[in-house]
Amino acid sequence: MTASHVHAKPAAATHLSTTLGELVEALASDSAGAFTAEIQGDPATVIRRIGPLDTQEPDTLSFLSNPKYRSQLAETQAACVIISPAVLADATGLRSAIVTPDPYRFFAAVTRWWAARVRPRPAAGVHPSAVVSPEAVIGQGVHIGALAVVEAGAVIGDGVVIGSHTTVGERARIGSGTRLAPHVTIGFDCVIGERCIFHSGVVIGADGFGFAPHQGRWEKIEQLGAVRIGNDVELGANTCVDRGALEDTIIEDGVKLDNLVQIAHNVHIGEHTAMAGCVGVAGSARIGKHCTVGGAGMILGHLTLADHVHVSSGTLISRSILKPGQYSGVFPFDENSAWEKNAATLRQLHALRDRIRALEKEVKS
Amino acid sequence: MTASHVHAKPAAATHLSTTLGELVEALASDSAGAFTAEIQGDPATVIRRIGPLDTQEPDTLSFLSNPKYRSQLAETQAACVIISPAVLADATGLRSAIVTPDPYRFFAAVTRWWAARVRPRPAAGVHPSAVVSPEAVIGQGVHIGALAVVEAGAVIGDGVVIGSHTTVGERARIGSGTRLAPHVTIGFDCVIGERCIFHSGVVIGADGFGFAPHQGRWEKIEQLGAVRIGNDVELGANTCVDRGALEDTIIEDGVKLDNLVQIAHNVHIGEHTAMAGCVGVAGSARIGKHCTVGGAGMILGHLTLADHVHVSSGTLISRSILKPGQYSGVFPFDENSAWEKNAATLRQLHALRDRIRALEKEVKS
Amino acid sequence: MTASHVHAKPAAATHLSTTLGELVEALASDSAGAFTAEIQGDPATVIRRIGPLDTQEPDTLSFLSNPKYRSQLAETQAACVIISPAVLADATGLRSAIVTPDPYRFFAAVTRWWAARVRPRPAAGVHPSAVVSPEAVIGQGVHIGALAVVEAGAVIGDGVVIGSHTTVGERARIGSGTRLAPHVTIGFDCVIGERCIFHSGVVIGADGFGFAPHQGRWEKIEQLGAVRIGNDVELGANTCVDRGALEDTIIEDGVKLDNLVQIAHNVHIGEHTAMAGCVGVAGSARIGKHCTVGGAGMILGHLTLADHVHVSSGTLISRSILKPGQYSGVFPFDENSAWEKNAATLRQLHALRDRIRALEKEVKS
Repeated sequence: MTASHVHAKPAAATHLSTTLGELVEALASDSAGAFTAEIQGDPATVIRRIGPLDTQEPDTLSFLSNPKYRSQLAETQAACVIISPAVLADATGLRSAIVTPDPYRFFAAVTRWWAARVRPRPAAGVHPSAVVSPEAVIGQGVHIGALAVVEAGAVIGDGVVIGSHTTVGERARIGSGTRLAPHVTIGFDCVIGERCIFHSGVVIGADGFGFAPHQGRWEKIEQLGAVRIGNDVELGANTCVDRGALEDTIIEDGVKLDNLVQIAHNVHIGEHTAMAGCVGVAGSARIGKHCTVGGAGMILGHLTLADHVHVSSGTLISRSILKPGQYSGVFPFDENSAWEKNAATLRQLHALRDRIRALEKEVKS
Repeated sequence: MTASHVHAKPAAATHLSTTLGELVEALASDSAGAFTAEIQGDPATVIRRIGPLDTQEPDTLSFLSNPKYRSQLAETQAACVIISPAVLADATGLRSAIVTPDPYRFFAAVTRWWAARVRPRPAAGVHPSAVVSPEAVIGQGVHIGALAVVEAGAVIGDGVVIGSHTTVGERARIGSGTRLAPHVTIGFDCVIGERCIFHSGVVIGADGFGFAPHQGRWEKIEQLGAVRIGNDVELGANTCVDRGALEDTIIEDGVKLDNLVQIAHNVHIGEHTAMAGCVGVAGSARIGKHCTVGGAGMILGHLTLADHVHVSSGTLISRSILKPGQYSGVFPFDENSAWEKNAATLRQLHALRDRIRALEKEVKS
Repeated sequence: MTASHVHAKPAAATHLSTTLGELVEALASDSAGAFTAEIQGDPATVIRRIGPLDTQEPDTLSFLSNPKYRSQLAETQAACVIISPAVLADATGLRSAIVTPDPYRFFAAVTRWWAARVRPRPAAGVHPSAVVSPEAVIGQGVHIGALAVVEAGAVIGDGVVIGSHTTVGERARIGSGTRLAPHVTIGFDCVIGERCIFHSGVVIGADGFGFAPHQGRWEKIEQLGAVRIGNDVELGANTCVDRGALEDTIIEDGVKLDNLVQIAHNVHIGEHTAMAGCVGVAGSARIGKHCTVGGAGMILGHLTLADHVHVSSGTLISRSILKPGQYSGVFPFDENSAWEKNAATLRQLHALRDRIRALEKEVKS
């Protein structure tokens, strides 16, 4: 239909090649033995890209994480597949394999090794166009990109990367190894942990939404708290975390939030909780550890979610959940005409229940 | 579980102390008598922070707005609590109290007084790195932050604060006392009122979403209107207000929109209406005065909401509402297994209604 | 109620006047005959603005696209109305008319002609405050605005407009004639087609949301793909398109996305599909050509939508749709008290179905 470049070859210029032997050895040594694997086949096999099992490209390293799809091993063109010992018997047709107990996790480690070699690496130093206050404290090996702003009293840890056009406000603190993409805003007094990754458009420390109503008008409640974010937190593009009203908004270690997520003032999110895109969490909600919220889920304010609560996509949580589990509440989609009929009937549902009751009385009498 | 700084002391460096007497007097005089209160206890009581009733910190000023929670007064550690005369009888255990008819509103005034003393205050002046057109008109006492852009023909009122990296487009006008946070975009020809607060990532005046379909393609309808925003409007982080197609998109005085709110072209929002995070309002919707929309509410296009209409969180409004009141439409969440059963049955609801009708006929016959 | 400027005259300073004759002739010649029309009335009629049929302003050019509203022709104050031949009989009261087979499309063309004359037109050249890598390749007639950043290896096509504060990352490519508003972020290696329009706050190429779970923690899967966007694509303010995990995220030619839309990694959107504000598309979803998604619709991951699938506003699509058509799934809103009753009953719906079954058995026995 079109000769557009979107149908041409992939955009990323990776230009990297390695061998199985080099890769497996590097991962083991870099991780002090956390990632070990056995190679089946020739360790000199060349790898030039990582791809899915149905790749058409030669020299691809792929992976099989779910044994359910083991039949795909017979047909893959990949030069090598990362597999678990459990599927070895199905892997006889492979040119080579990396055998490891948790293939998906090993694959993740490979992507990190790979990315460290092909992604642009910002060099340490302050771009001459950046505006860095002499009253800021800048650690060792910090990169501050073009036209970034670091205000007075900010403290930037060692090895931090601050992207172009990013603003770090007065007295904010950024922990070591954290990477702020271009166009991030860190508000004054906010504190960010170590090894965090904040994507472009993230806004930390805008005012929480607080007003006192008076004679039909809204009078501003100034937000006197800040935001505290733990270590190893990743925040997606255009995600917002508001500053607290009196105390701080808190995001604990290891939390991962996708793009366009809204975290209101005084929310508290427990360790290793993850939320997909377009989620909203209203003021003073307290979310436990190891929770997940699917895309466009919405958590109302002033309620509590226990640890290990999982909220399905599109579900609005309107009261506290004290028991771990999966919770859902979505209108099932349908062809429009069918939906219209069911939706219209839904508006009489309570009356229908009464009619069933009446029938039951009648029939039983 | 962790020694992370998120469990350490609050991030905000407030460093302010005052006495009850000083505070109450300052509020009365600053407001020309609008905020008056009586002190019960020692006016020399020192206040070093504002906090909730369950604070563990000494020297805290707290408040009780809802008499329902008056029992908490007996246990608070707060040095002073702002209360209404109605709960005086329950306040005998307090160290001191500020007695005033509307404690929440008085508390809001205290936060403003406090913030004016502890928040970074941008000094008047244009940062040397800002790019300000010689054809812009800049008022008295304006602050233009690092790397901000003010284009030709823009008119900036007295006392305006323009944050770092903020762009004010050609011929845009910003009213006196308005504060634009870092990373705000004001499009050409847009007009912003006085004393507004726009948080980081706000985009005013992007093109409305308008296309004419032609043979399966979309042909652009250029958006020839602009955006007009009244006085005392607050817009949350990453909120968007599109320019109108032919006429202007209009937000009246005193409107408050939270983060990540989408206001489409030619919407008209009446005075003192408030919308929580993640709300969307589609094109040409006309929202009345004193309305509220809960988080992730969605208002479809070309419809009218009367004054004093309140839309619950997560509710999609698909036709006009001419009568004030609270309107809701959310699938109630449940444990996933229960939801699955009910959702599946919902897809047959109209057929169930027919079966009830058939039963009624049968039973009555 | 107020003397606020929001009730004053429109914000846009259009200052353009033309005549019917000049306008119709210009459109025909500019489009090489694609837009032709006949003038009824005086070709010397002066036009000073484009507006709706109910305009109060003189010298307005309006349009009637839907013959259903033909009765409005009798009352309009417009100096001229663009109409189809089908309504000529109802147009006898008009001062003048432009008669053309598709009035809405003709109107769209008029807005483009108009905008080209009244909108600020950035001149070719690089603003001295911009930071452009000497290793970037810049085409002919390119505008690079104040404080923009173009990194090493980026390739900028002829006639591209890069707004103030916009960042184009390393090795990214921008096709000819594309316009990036202020505050856009284009990530490294991403490829954008020709004649695209990206509004402020757009983020292309942030990391997709990918993690491997391990002992209750999330281990990052680096995203090794990029984003490829076709020609004539328009993206609204604060919309995000993430880079792919292994392969690229792809948006084909002619796609239009409104504000605050989230496109996750490895999504593929077919030609001329349009999505309204606040839509989310989860990872690896494959959306066909000529689809539409209404505001706040949500498409879950790893599923397929055929060409010509239309998703209603607020609808969550949880499985593949292989048949063209309109699909919906929204809880119909109601007065809160009615909704509360129906929602409560909905949580027992499956049990109600069982009671109906039991009744049916009983009645039939």
